[in-house]
Amino acid sequence: MEKIFLASQNMHKINEIQYIMGEKYKIYPASDLIGNIEVEEYGKTFIENSVIKAVSIGDKINKPVIADDSGLCIEALNGFPGINSARFMNDKTYEEKMVHILEKMKNEKNRKAYFVCVATFYISGEFCFSYEGRVYGSISKEIRGNKGFGYDPFFIPDGYEKTFAELGDEIKNEFSHRKRAFEGLIEKLNKI
Amino acid sequence: MEKIFLASQNMHKINEIQYIMGEKYKIYPASDLIGNIEVEEYGKTFIENSVIKAVSIGDKINKPVIADDSGLCIEALNGFPGINSARFMNDKTYEEKMVHILEKMKNEKNRKAYFVCVATFYISGEFCFSYEGRVYGSISKEIRGNKGFGYDPFFIPDGYEKTFAELGDEIKNEFSHRKRAFEGLIEKLNKI
Repeated sequence: MEKIFLASQNMHKINEIQYIMGEKYKIYPASDLIGNIEVEEYGKTFIENSVIKAVSIGDKINKPVIADDSGLCIEALNGFPGINSARFMNDKTYEEKMVHILEKMKNEKNRKAYFVCVATFYISGEFCFSYEGRVYGSISKEIRGNKGFGYDPFFIPDGYEKTFAELGDEIKNEFSHRKRAFEGLIEKLNKI
Repeated sequence: MEKIFLASQNMHKINEIQYIMGEKYKIYPASDLIGNIEVEEYGKTFIENSVIKAVSIGDKINKPVIADDSGLCIEALNGFPGINSARFMNDKTYEEKMVHILEKMKNEKNRKAYFVCVATFYISGEFCFSYEGRVYGSISKEIRGNKGFGYDPFFIPDGYEKTFAELGDEIKNEFSHRKRAFEGLIEKLNKI
């Protein structure tokens, strides 16, 4: 079983990634080794920020590290909130953020959006591999469901009528952006 | 033969990378597609800047792209000039930069240094792979040789008595940092 450190101390994320990566890998928060470190995300794309997190932490711990960066991109808002999905209206709850976005889109017919996640594996001084996963869908007219987190309550994945927060983790994790990113990452890593 | 675009219009670099990557790949400057674009290198490490170049260009051309970032790290100067190897004393020649560094190191016994190169392959929206190559050596007491470019005239690779600029491209390209980075990159890419 390979020990890998995750550049995050978010337990929800650690559990989700552990579940996706399966028994071959055991995921620990990098903070177990170096305490909590705030990484400045100065990249302009998801992939850059995912690499910046992995490199910042990986160079410090000198052990294999994984990181991810994810967010929601809404077509009618030119990709907003994008890489700022977590940071925009930083002092507000996700419910307040969603209300704000729904208000902006109230007369908007184009509801197309996608969740994106870039998963990165890095070994300091050796190599870095990033894989992108997306799930396409649309923004609902109103907030619905309470099983998810973040923007889940107003995102309806293509092929469904319900939001991610109505569908719940079990269905979401079958085809989520994070699932696709880490699955692709692992599949490629196993070959090299 | 696979067509790959390089995020650089430096013909010296294009030729060197074409030579390393062999006949399976044909390298073109990305500027053939989108003209000359200046990419701001706001990363704090070689790997970040290599990814930033690949992603900035790759997202524009929507075709496979390679990029690299390289430099010289001198141990006694805490890794200087590092990621700023090309940019520091920007208006000066490499000879002037080397004279400046030799002056700073004139009483320094620790001459250890290494050249590093991170090569990156990126397909927009899919994946990104970076591989690091290094060549260790030492900083000579004076500038010697005229066959190289950049900092080659004051870098003596371990196991040799001559500088890279005295040894010449044929020997240098057998084990240079760029050779190691692109060779590692290609070897891994061929597996996935």
